[in-house]
Amino acid sequence: MSFQLHPQLAKDCIHLGRLDLCRLLLMNDNQFPWFILVPEIPNISEAYQLSKQQRGQLQEESCYLAEQLAQLFDADKMNIAALGNLVPQLHVHHVVRYRADPAWPQPVWGKLSAIPYSIEQIQALRYRLDGQLGNYLKP
Amino acid sequence: MSFQLHPQLAKDCIHLGRLDLCRLLLMNDNQFPWFILVPEIPNISEAYQLSKQQRGQLQEESCYLAEQLAQLFDADKMNIAALGNLVPQLHVHHVVRYRADPAWPQPVWGKLSAIPYSIEQIQALRYRLDGQLGNYLKP
Repeated sequence: MSFQLHPQLAKDCIHLGRLDLCRLLLMNDNQFPWFILVPEIPNISEAYQLSKQQRGQLQEESCYLAEQLAQLFDADKMNIAALGNLVPQLHVHHVVRYRADPAWPQPVWGKLSAIPYSIEQIQALRYRLDGQLGNYLKP
Repeated sequence: MSFQLHPQLAKDCIHLGRLDLCRLLLMNDNQFPWFILVPEIPNISEAYQLSKQQRGQLQEESCYLAEQLAQLFDADKMNIAALGNLVPQLHVHHVVRYRADPAWPQPVWGKLSAIPYSIEQIQALRYRLDGQLGNYLKP
């Protein structure tokens, strides 16, 4: 059985590209630089269900992404989380947080209604991200 | 400089033991089976600041703990998160979630005031956890 992105993630997010194991999504909410990694392995809801090799790869992709995002967006803190109470397909949030953001110091989930990006904002963000991640990000 | 547990974690949590890299804490809130792993490495606030070997070890300890907790507590979902907006020292939450718990489907942070365990509850929980984790958990 092949991997298929959960329809709720497809609805809420914008496809940015792929790393070796994971699909990289942007949460369509311009209030936070909020990215999601989804390992492209079918029927996984918890990281421990991945093979040891896949778990290690997920950790490396997560740490790489978090470090690059922290640099690119000059984060005060990164919030990294796999929750999945509403969408069981394993997906790992990477949220750039600022002391001045509208949810600080609380987590971002369930606090504010999403404000979608404009086309221009998405293009600008893609351009910045491609510059930061370089060849690491594939279509 | 040696590792010292952040005073807020020391205040909010109960020491359960140690894995190879991490200290295992219990959040002193009997509303959720809520555990925290803290890598015993000084001056770390993000997982990407660990060495590659340490990051891999953290992932393995996190996955092992999450799987054991899911079994022991018959979880509907595990919530795994490194936030750190209030306590910058890297610590990874492992929260057993149920569809009937008082915060579901929202995350647990900032929702409810903690209700401390009784001494008897902590003893019973330690006993169950020792049985599940066996020799993997050191004092």
